[in-house]
Amino acid sequence: MPEILICEVGPRDGLQNAKQLMPTEAKKAWIRSLADAGLREIEVGSFVPPKLIPAMADTHELVVFSRALPNLKVVALAPNLKGFQRAIEAGAHKVTFPVSASREHSLSNVRMTPDQMVEEVRKCAEHPHPGVEMEGAVSTAFGCTMQGEVPEEDVVRIASKLAGFCDSVALADTVGYANPAQVKRLFNKVRSEIGDKLEGAHFHDTRGLGLANALAAYEVGVRAFDSSLGGLGGCPFAPGASGNVITEDLVFMFESMGLDTGIDLDKLLEARKLMVSAIPGEPVYGHLAMAGAPKGFHAAA
Amino acid sequence: MPEILICEVGPRDGLQNAKQLMPTEAKKAWIRSLADAGLREIEVGSFVPPKLIPAMADTHELVVFSRALPNLKVVALAPNLKGFQRAIEAGAHKVTFPVSASREHSLSNVRMTPDQMVEEVRKCAEHPHPGVEMEGAVSTAFGCTMQGEVPEEDVVRIASKLAGFCDSVALADTVGYANPAQVKRLFNKVRSEIGDKLEGAHFHDTRGLGLANALAAYEVGVRAFDSSLGGLGGCPFAPGASGNVITEDLVFMFESMGLDTGIDLDKLLEARKLMVSAIPGEPVYGHLAMAGAPKGFHAAA
Repeated sequence: MPEILICEVGPRDGLQNAKQLMPTEAKKAWIRSLADAGLREIEVGSFVPPKLIPAMADTHELVVFSRALPNLKVVALAPNLKGFQRAIEAGAHKVTFPVSASREHSLSNVRMTPDQMVEEVRKCAEHPHPGVEMEGAVSTAFGCTMQGEVPEEDVVRIASKLAGFCDSVALADTVGYANPAQVKRLFNKVRSEIGDKLEGAHFHDTRGLGLANALAAYEVGVRAFDSSLGGLGGCPFAPGASGNVITEDLVFMFESMGLDTGIDLDKLLEARKLMVSAIPGEPVYGHLAMAGAPKGFHAAA
Repeated sequence: MPEILICEVGPRDGLQNAKQLMPTEAKKAWIRSLADAGLREIEVGSFVPPKLIPAMADTHELVVFSRALPNLKVVALAPNLKGFQRAIEAGAHKVTFPVSASREHSLSNVRMTPDQMVEEVRKCAEHPHPGVEMEGAVSTAFGCTMQGEVPEEDVVRIASKLAGFCDSVALADTVGYANPAQVKRLFNKVRSEIGDKLEGAHFHDTRGLGLANALAAYEVGVRAFDSSLGGLGGCPFAPGASGNVITEDLVFMFESMGLDTGIDLDKLLEARKLMVSAIPGEPVYGHLAMAGAPKGFHAAA
């Protein structure tokens, strides 16, 4: 295993927010190129009702396709038991369940309070799911565009409940509100409650702090990060602003620090080109693709 | 004094690399708005031959103007004794002397080796300069587009020599090659040689790591940072790529961490608008200006 595990969420978080639909065959080619570049986890889609999010209608097909790729953990999102059943049926290795720590965001998004949503995930855990990992992802953990501040005790409470029946728990800065001091404090607080069940960090770069927050999380022991190639999808709450932390910049940061991600940067930039050509005109972000690697740059591994 | 001292270098490092000339009166209005926003140090220009860099031809006038603003330390760059004499004559409070740690960059830029350039700065130190602070800035300290890797012992040697006759020493990542691990290592190494004479950090965001590097530097005790509003000027070595760390994003990072910069973010964004209107069409960068501050955001002070 690499020292740093990066989960590419572009096919889910990116495409879900993109203006254009990417054709299924193009998604497959992109996912294959990501796996070729060394990604060991890819969130390929979301088992939500296709009428709600047409961009995710082909998730079953993508899970089946991705399962055939070597050395890849295939991740899908599910918001409820029905979605979880579809994910199991398709053969996802890991399913991530978003639970918003913001009451307002949760009510607006899934018409349930955060604690009701936790119970929905508990029902999923009680459903037979042999060999399928469950991740509880505490979203809006660092703040919410509706509610503003999200009390840290709410995040700790939800994370602790989820840790009771999920295999792992992640903290997500869904709207790009986190800062490095808060990241360290909150990851430490949650870890003191649930220990090593706390795994992933999901940051957005909306206010430019994405990499600084990833660094802060690394410094308090986080080794698993979500990100999106080219920051695809932008930020639905701030038109024109960037969205997910950018995979290639995140990989570059860690590799330049001497930390092995298992990812080949040149191949990753090829995968980026493939993605860009599949949805021309969609805004993409990222520094490395523009500036190139430093002269004499060596990857960590 | 604020906990974090930010020196705005846009009028120098930004405008020096901008495609357009900013009229002197517009520069004055911009500098005044920066001081109004709470900036306590501004690098207003460079005492280089006007024929070489026409954008810096009005530096004398800007130093005189800026000295009249309250609570402002007026900084200017000088590459040699002649420039230093002009800076003293104009009334600069602080003069910064760039010394490239990269032999190739130094020879190409000033036709002197790094050690010859150190001797040039020593001559300046021996010139009477009552009340004028001297800063030795080790440029390309983290790598060089020409030479590639810059040995850390070269940086330590040059910084140590400069500390012998300068009031303070800064380390500059002139071309955006630094990574957070290297930042911590090199600042620690240099500090172990010259102690508190090591003050400033000057980062570029060319590869997206600007804020992460600033965070890393903060974590090893650095409290003084250069930055440029809107990342003005971009990167001369990578067309289209961003340049200096972006002042407003840097201020936002520290303030959101609860660290007082003494800078009013709203006023800073007003100063940004003023700058943009003075050189329309010039590329500017930055996340905060696009996304806005988080709901319920409170500055540190």
